[in-house]
Formats: sequence, structure tokens, C-alpha cells
Amino acid sequence: MQALEEHYKPFLSSRVEARKFSPFWSQNLPEGLKPHPKPIDLGPGLPHEGFFPIESMHLNVVEEPFQHTSAGTKSHKLHKPAPEGSKHFEERAFVTEKLSSDSAVDVWRYEPNSPEVIPLSQGLQYTETAGMKQLLDFCRGFVSYAHPPAYNEWDVTLANGSSDATFKIIETLCDSSVTVLVEEFTFSPTLAIITAAGGTTVPLKLDITADPDVQGINVEYLTDLLDNWSQGPNAHLSKPKLLYTIPTGQNPTGMTLSFEKRKQIYALAEKHDFIIIEDDPYGYLRYPFYDRKNPDYNPYALHEYTAKDYCEKVLSKSFITMDTSGRVLRCETFSKVFCPGLRLSFIAGNKYLIKKIVDFAEVSSRAPSGLSQLIVNNVIQKWAKSYSSPQEAWLVWVMKVAGHYTHRRNMFVQALEATEAFSEGLFSLAQTSAGMFLAVEINFDHFAKSLSITERSKAMQRLSSISIEEGVGIIQGINMAADRKYSLARSFFLRLTFAFAADVEELQEAADRLGKSVKRLAAEL
Amino acid sequence: MQALEEHYKPFLSSRVEARKFSPFWSQNLPEGLKPHPKPIDLGPGLPHEGFFPIESMHLNVVEEPFQHTSAGTKSHKLHKPAPEGSKHFEERAFVTEKLSSDSAVDVWRYEPNSPEVIPLSQGLQYTETAGMKQLLDFCRGFVSYAHPPAYNEWDVTLANGSSDATFKIIETLCDSSVTVLVEEFTFSPTLAIITAAGGTTVPLKLDITADPDVQGINVEYLTDLLDNWSQGPNAHLSKPKLLYTIPTGQNPTGMTLSFEKRKQIYALAEKHDFIIIEDDPYGYLRYPFYDRKNPDYNPYALHEYTAKDYCEKVLSKSFITMDTSGRVLRCETFSKVFCPGLRLSFIAGNKYLIKKIVDFAEVSSRAPSGLSQLIVNNVIQKWAKSYSSPQEAWLVWVMKVAGHYTHRRNMFVQALEATEAFSEGLFSLAQTSAGMFLAVEINFDHFAKSLSITERSKAMQRLSSISIEEGVGIIQGINMAADRKYSLARSFFLRLTFAFAADVEELQEAADRLGKSVKRLAAEL
Repeated sequence: MQALEEHYKPFLSSRVEARKFSPFWSQNLPEGLKPHPKPIDLGPGLPHEGFFPIESMHLNVVEEPFQHTSAGTKSHKLHKPAPEGSKHFEERAFVTEKLSSDSAVDVWRYEPNSPEVIPLSQGLQYTETAGMKQLLDFCRGFVSYAHPPAYNEWDVTLANGSSDATFKIIETLCDSSVTVLVEEFTFSPTLAIITAAGGTTVPLKLDITADPDVQGINVEYLTDLLDNWSQGPNAHLSKPKLLYTIPTGQNPTGMTLSFEKRKQIYALAEKHDFIIIEDDPYGYLRYPFYDRKNPDYNPYALHEYTAKDYCEKVLSKSFITMDTSGRVLRCETFSKVFCPGLRLSFIAGNKYLIKKIVDFAEVSSRAPSGLSQLIVNNVIQKWAKSYSSPQEAWLVWVMKVAGHYTHRRNMFVQALEATEAFSEGLFSLAQTSAGMFLAVEINFDHFAKSLSITERSKAMQRLSSISIEEGVGIIQGINMAADRKYSLARSFFLRLTFAFAADVEELQEAADRLGKSVKRLAAEL
Repeated sequence: MQALEEHYKPFLSSRVEARKFSPFWSQNLPEGLKPHPKPIDLGPGLPHEGFFPIESMHLNVVEEPFQHTSAGTKSHKLHKPAPEGSKHFEERAFVTEKLSSDSAVDVWRYEPNSPEVIPLSQGLQYTETAGMKQLLDFCRGFVSYAHPPAYNEWDVTLANGSSDATFKIIETLCDSSVTVLVEEFTFSPTLAIITAAGGTTVPLKLDITADPDVQGINVEYLTDLLDNWSQGPNAHLSKPKLLYTIPTGQNPTGMTLSFEKRKQIYALAEKHDFIIIEDDPYGYLRYPFYDRKNPDYNPYALHEYTAKDYCEKVLSKSFITMDTSGRVLRCETFSKVFCPGLRLSFIAGNKYLIKKIVDFAEVSSRAPSGLSQLIVNNVIQKWAKSYSSPQEAWLVWVMKVAGHYTHRRNMFVQALEATEAFSEGLFSLAQTSAGMFLAVEINFDHFAKSLSITERSKAMQRLSSISIEEGVGIIQGINMAADRKYSLARSFFLRLTFAFAADVEELQEAADRLGKSVKRLAAEL
């Protein structure tokens, strides 16, 4: 811990010093005091759990994503509206049966015999700021299982979702003098968080390509930038202390950094002494690259992976697995693999920095929702009864989610490639192997070569209008650029997601509409 | 809005300017565009609700606090362990019955016919940062019902509990140059939040007394302090821009500011142009002053109040009800009247400042837990079916909670007054009319008059040790002082809460132990 403090104290923002939370309930007691064996505490300002209106909670949990949403039924409360004449479904009878057969996830006020489960008396009460022991234990176990750090002195804290995690990290590490490296196209709300803390972002050139060895941050560019900082275009800025990256299923490009590139970037972090903030919301949504010869291939549907295989062979190696000096802060979230409304995420990193982040939570938001914590924890613990560990049980669910994403990706790419616009070469797909996004590049070189960069940029805006008329919502790559000028020439792509559509039919219709939109654009030019 | 901006812009902290959140999904569309009637959106990075593992949620909600906790039963999951030979209770049969009879609060994936209810497809999804429409509507209606502001341009935003609300307000209004007035004894984590923002707190003298007209902030002191700021002890600090106060059931003193004092303080705020941050977590836990002639009197148990009476005659008038210029930020929380684990609260204030607070949430935590929002909203909406409005339904529950607090207070005070230490005048009670706390003043003047202030302070620490041996947990008033030196002579009191004990018997035993502790202290001196 002392070595960590020595190394990372200089990284702390000027605001950290003033965060001094000393609980009014802590006491320095003289030695030799003999506490009463059965004390009654009139100290804590907590309402007794008997004041809470909820006595028990019962969750009807599915075994598989989309288990019932598209069922041909008439339940309006569990299912999407079904066609006339479809089978009637008694939703109340269904859940009553689940409840009486112990196949629901029951959350009781007390759990005297199951310490791994969070009872309502704990989940609805004030709790430790870093998170409840049960869920923290799960998260620590999960990091060890899926992304074991290459050193020992690490820990985990919960946060209120990834945005909150990023905010707390940035406010702890970023001052007005701090330069933060970011992918040139990135999750732009993070840029706003860095700007709000007074920091300056410097974009890193991305290789937007289908080649798995090449895609993502251009390492030569980064190496040169860092080695020649004081001669480069950012010489007026301090040398970067932070790199914010979404290495797997990057938002918005969908790219994934190869293991080789990760090792090179980590080596640069060691050499130039910067901290890597690894934001990994999409990392568990892995799938093979799309194979035109076998377009329906879905290894999850074929049950090709055990949980162990999935971690060892399928998941990208996190930066934290190669971290020997505690310079990686890994942000995970339950948003994409459980649900976003939880506002629940966690950060893994070195104990010193994690402590500083918790210290900040003590004087700001304090703990995340106990309801969110107990629901995630207890659903996983219920599943865990059928597996060798809660981590394995959780990954079995996660793989089911990944399987659905794989199927959607397969169907969506097939539909896009089936359009006239694609076969005419008007756009191409920057194939991806993880996440919710697909970058669609508009091939101006192919159909409107004479257009200048500015004209192409205008044409992209025109494409937005056309696509609204055609009925397909898209996101412009340029809207997620850290520096629009810097990235303009590489910005002629759309971010499409196959996560939000109700089903494959919708995706196919949307692909069709996109194809028509691009054709209309080409015809206009 | 323009007048609000003109007046309150100078109050904003230097950090506000840099908070610029521009969503990458927003679009400027040309006029005359004809959007497709049935668009499919490939834009938003949201997982479809079919990915969420929870299909429905069923809450077994009590009708009354402590409905079952102390029942003489053998359920280990709903109830406290019951004595041998007590009646057996089938908890699963009980909730199955509730569920099949529609008396549970059911949360379904879709609610096609009940727009006031939050379905899982919304509650588990990403949502608006300020909060979900249904709950915001409820909160706005509730403020109008219980504490109508004296002007029109106000609004409400949710926050992740009171600590988060205070943090967001302070970070929006407080710079290193800002002076914040606080009650000399206060919820000390707020002091840490102000310090972390760089602000300086100045304590206000409190009258700790049973007299309802006198208790709380000493207004003469405050008037003099403000009128003569530049000649006073704080002349080196800027004139205060903010007052942070807990006006009802104050923590730790339990005091409530009279209506007359509130008017005077509001007039001072107008004169000296400061903003009032009114933190009111305890305001709904109102009870009459303890009456020795009628020690069991509990108007709630006697059903003396309708919801309307309760608002008009029982609740203290909030500062916001006399606010004509939009200078009050009222912080409410569901922690004390629903449960703390929700991490859910709301702020009411002028639209300009509320917008600035939401702008901050956009670049930090974003929305509070959707699960917390939907549970609070849907429980209230379920109750609402039996009442004329959701506000009334909610207040009926709140009055039940207040009734339990009243009973506990009655029993606790009786037990304290029954101790030898009390009848010998060793301590006295600063009677209160709201909240969770009771201040117990140690009467050194009565039994150890010769002790100096320093010696009394040491004796208080000794009392902590004795009480641990006797088995009663207490909080020292001095631990919650903004400035220990300033308040030392007024700090010889303990904060006791009657909220956390399991039942009245525990409170009585604790009172007994406290009496013994004070007697032991007196004997030692």
C-alpha cells in the first residue's frame, strides 16, 4: 500500500485533499473497557426495518432473454401485444405458480441461514458506501475469475452506473492541468465529464477496419505522440496522466483492441507513467467475426463454451490482467448484462486509488441503491444453486445474453449485406466481434469520389434527414468525435445498434430502410 | 425564468460553466422534413427490455409499520425469531395468497392501461436524468399539496438520497470563496461536503430548550451576525451566500424552528440575499410535545387527523411556503418514511437552479436507480386506489409511520423520566416535536457545578465509556459541532434516537441503562 501511495499520490486532483469524512459515530475508547455483552444502540439515525413498508419481494425471473416477450399470447402485462386469435395467457396464475413452487427469486425480510443473500432488512437500510459485503464479495470473486489482475493489492468498489464511476474517477484524478487521452470517437458523455472537471482531452487516431489485428487505437500514432510530446501539436498541454479507453466493442466504432495492441499500450503506460481507465460495458457481449460462409454461426446456441472457456478463450484480456503496477482502473457495469435501470456498476483497481474513490463517495452520493444491489446479488445467488459458483452461474446468464447478441448481429449483417446499396458498394461494414454497435462506412470514394471533405460531411447530414424520412434512426459518427476538426475525414460512418430493436424482423426492416436511404443519397449526389 | 437567471446566476460556483452536456443523439433537422410514421430506431445504445432477466416483480407490502415483525410466530424470514411454542406461520402460503388475490403490488413488464404506474420495461431501462415522469409528477403534486411554494416558477428533480442532493446543490453553489451558515450542531457529513467543495462554514448559535417558541437558531444572534458582518469575528470571510438548515426535528438536537422564527430568517435571507438550503428528512415525523399529564397521547392512534389536517395543522410550514423570490432549495427524502436503501430523494426549488442541478447530474451520476423509482411510485399508486389522490394515499402511510414514532417517543420519555438519575436532576430532556432524535442534557450545574468547561468535556467522554460498559450506544453532541471550540460550552448533551430499537421494551431497557450510566458518572465526579 505504501508503494502504491508513493506512486499514485501525485496523480490525485487538487480536490482530493479537502475530502475529509470523519463519521460522527466513531469513538476512541480507552483501553481495558469492557463493553456490555448485549448493547442496545441509541446512536445510529436509522429507522428500524419494521418501519419499511415492504415485507417481502418476489421476482419472476426468466431463464433466457426474450423468453416470453414475443410469445404468441394475449398477456398485455408480460408480453408484447400478440396477434388476434393467439393463445391466452394467465399472467397472475403463472407467477402464483412460480411463487408457490419456489422457482421465483424470493427476497425476505430476514435470511438467518443464508449469509450470501441480502435480506430486505439490510437491502432497504443504510449501508456501507463501497457496497454491501455480499455483492462486493461477488464482484471481487468475479474479477478474480474473469479478469485476474496481475498484482495483489487491488480492490473493488460499487458505483451508481458507469457514468458515475467515470465521474468519480475523473474528479479524483483530473484537474484543470490534466491531459486525458481518449479514442478520437468515443462515448461523448465521458468527454463532458472530463471537461467539467477542467481537464483537456487529446484524441487518439483510431483504425476503423475489419482487421482484428489492426482495429482500434493506432499504436504507432500513440507511441509517436508520447515520445515526441513536446515537439507535437499538444506541446502546450501537460503530458497525459490518463488514458480513457473502451477497448472491447468500442462505442461508437464497435472495434476491439487486439491482445498485442493492449500489451503495447500497457507498455507505453509504464514508460510514460499514465493511468488507464478501462471502461468495459460491452466486453461480455463477445461473438466471432461474421463469416459469410457460415452466416448463422452462433457458438452460444451450440453450447460450445463452458464458463471457464468463455473467460479463457472468448473474452478479451482486460488491461488489468497485465497490470503489474496498479495503473489500470477497470470499470464494469451491470447495465448491459442485467439492466441499465439498476444504476449499478463497479470499479476494480489498486487499493489506494479505490480508497480515494470511496472517500469521494462518502462526501457525495454515498452507497448505490440497496434495492439494486440486493436484486442483482440475490438473483445471482438463486442461479448459483445450480452451479459450482455464483461467478459461473452469472456467466451462464451472460453467455445467454451474448448468444442473443450474436444472433442479432448475424441477422442484421445478413440483412444489410442483402441490400442493393451494399451490393453496389455504396457502404461497407466495419465488422466487429463484441458489443452492441456496428459502424457503417459510407463509401464516398466509390460513388462520389469528387466530393471534398466538407461536401462529404454535408452529405452525411443529408443522410440523417433521408433516413428519418425512410424511418430508420441512426447516430452520426461525427457526433461522438472528441475533436470534430481532427476527425472529420475519418467520420463518414454511422453507429447502428442491434440491441434496441424488438426482434430480428425489425432489424431486417431497418436494414432495408437504411439501404434505401443510402441509395437515395447516392442518387442525389 | 429570465428574472431568476439574473438573480441567481451570480450564485453559481465557478465549476458550473464547464458542465456542458450535449447529447450525441440530438439532431438539428431541416424544416419540412416528413418523418416516417413508424420509424425503427437503431440509434440509442439501450438493450431491449427483452434482455432484462426480471419479467415481473411482486411486493408483499404491509398496511402498517411493524405489522408482523414482533408477531408471536415462527417465521424466520418475515418475522423476528419468536419464542418457543408460538404459532407457526407459513410465509410462502401467506404471500402466495396475497399474490393470487391481487393484494400484492405487482410490477409487470408492460402496463398498457395504467400510465401512472412505472412498468419494468421503463423502470429497468435508461431514463431521464431528473427522474421518471410518473414519480416526478407525484413529487410535484406532493410539494403542491403539502408545502406549496409562494411563487410559480419552481420545479423538482430527483437525487440519489439527501447526501447526494446536498452534494449536488453545494457543488453548484459553493466555491472556495463561499461562506455557508450552518446550525452550530448539525448533520456533520454536510460539513464535510461543504469543506470538500472548498467552502467555509460559520456556525449559528442554537437555543437548545424545550420552549417551542425559542428552540433552534437564535435569530437575534443571526441578525446581529449579518448586520455587522464586517465588524464581526468572520470579517475575513465573504458574506454568506448560503444557509444550510434542518428546521424540523433538527439533527442532532431534535429542535423545530417556530413559524415566527422561520419568517424572521426568511426576511433576513431577503435582506442579505442568501439562499436557504432546507434539509427536511424528518419533517413528516411530527408529534405533539410530550405531556406528562397525558403521557400516552398519540393523535395518530386516535385518528385525529385527515391528510389535509396533517398538512395544514400538523406539519411545520416549510421555508418554501413563504418563498416569493425562489431562494429556497427544499430537500426531501424517502429514506425516513419509506426506506433508506432506496437512495432516493428530491429537491424542490426555482426552475433555474433546479436546471443547473440536473445539468450537474448529466455529467455525474445521471438518474437515480430506476428500481427505487418504480418501487416507490408503484407502491404509492397501488395505495392511491383507495384514496382521492396519490398524495393523500402517501400521507396516510406517512401518518402511520409518524404514529409509531409518537408512541416510541412517549414510551422512551416515560422510561427516561422514570430513572433515578432523572428524578435526581442529573439530566434533563430537550423535548422535541418532530423527528428521530432526543437531546439529553447532562446537568453538570446541578451535580458538579465546580467543573470547568474542559473538565465537563472530559466527563462527557467518560460518560461514553461508562455507557458502553452499561450497554447503551449514544452519540455525543460535540461530535456534530461545526466548530468544537465555538460550541464546547453548549455541547454537554447526547443525541439519542428511538428510531432504531427493535421495540418499546428495548427502548425502556436502554433508558434504564442510560440512567445508570449517568448515575455512575455523577458518583465518580
